Amino acid sequence: MEQRISLLTLAVEDLERAHAFYAQLGWVGQEVEETVFFQAGGIAVVLWSQEKLAADCGLAVRDPGGFDGVSIAHNVRSIAEVDGVLAAAERAGGTITRPAAETFYGGYAGVFCDPDGHAWEVAHNPGFELRDDGSVIVPRFDQLS
Amino acid sequence: MEQRISLLTLAVEDLERAHAFYAQLGWVGQEVEETVFFQAGGIAVVLWSQEKLAADCGLAVRDPGGFDGVSIAHNVRSIAEVDGVLAAAERAGGTITRPAAETFYGGYAGVFCDPDGHAWEVAHNPGFELRDDGSVIVPRFDQLS
Repeated sequence: MEQRISLLTLAVEDLERAHAFYAQLGWVGQEVEETVFFQAGGIAVVLWSQEKLAADCGLAVRDPGGFDGVSIAHNVRSIAEVDGVLAAAERAGGTITRPAAETFYGGYAGVFCDPDGHAWEVAHNPGFELRDDGSVIVPRFDQLS
Repeated sequence: MEQRISLLTLAVEDLERAHAFYAQLGWVGQEVEETVFFQAGGIAVVLWSQEKLAADCGLAVRDPGGFDGVSIAHNVRSIAEVDGVLAAAERAGGTITRPAAETFYGGYAGVFCDPDGHAWEVAHNPGFELRDDGSVIVPRFDQLS
């Protein structure tokens, strides 16, 4: 199995609400057959009905609320950008679940949840190289001093 | 907010078990401070304790089991590769929750869950370009005939 992912699909209760949230954050997607596809670097982020996605995975839907077992990080280039993205997410209808602050790994980050409770950490992490194309490079920890 | 993700962190109950599962699938990661980092194309896939990740997100842990609200797709280049990855996932201790079959979108796919219940769809989808570097390109649906 190659070491990569292709799509990340977020289960949503209300596709229009979810699409509007990401659109307000500046994301441009394509809505087709009750699904929204966003090109996100080398992967796609997809919004799809919770019931359909769970059934498609052969799994039962759980009660809403609480942590869904996965978090997405969105790394940015400065502390000011962290504050800016979190403020934009709140204006768009997201919920700040961890206000921005310095982190144990020497960065600065906060967390918002989208209207369906999917958690996004917005982080400035000087230890992880962020390339011009938005790719993130995991450092070689054994070579750090 | 730029249209991309940086890290996808999967909550795990037992880090060694989760690390061993992905290692058996051929993934090479770095374990540091009770966290495993995998470089996965332009993003990182991370394994971290469920309790720590939930607390880090400012959210409550939910009861285990069932669909966690997110699915990851791993697109491959052939039907045979779908079967191969699913078989490897099962040998490594994963659970096939949807056996491989032709899909409504004209591809061929199946779903496995890792030992922590994270759902991976392994898909051959001729409609989504898969570049040599593993990037996936969302088609322009309005230009499809």
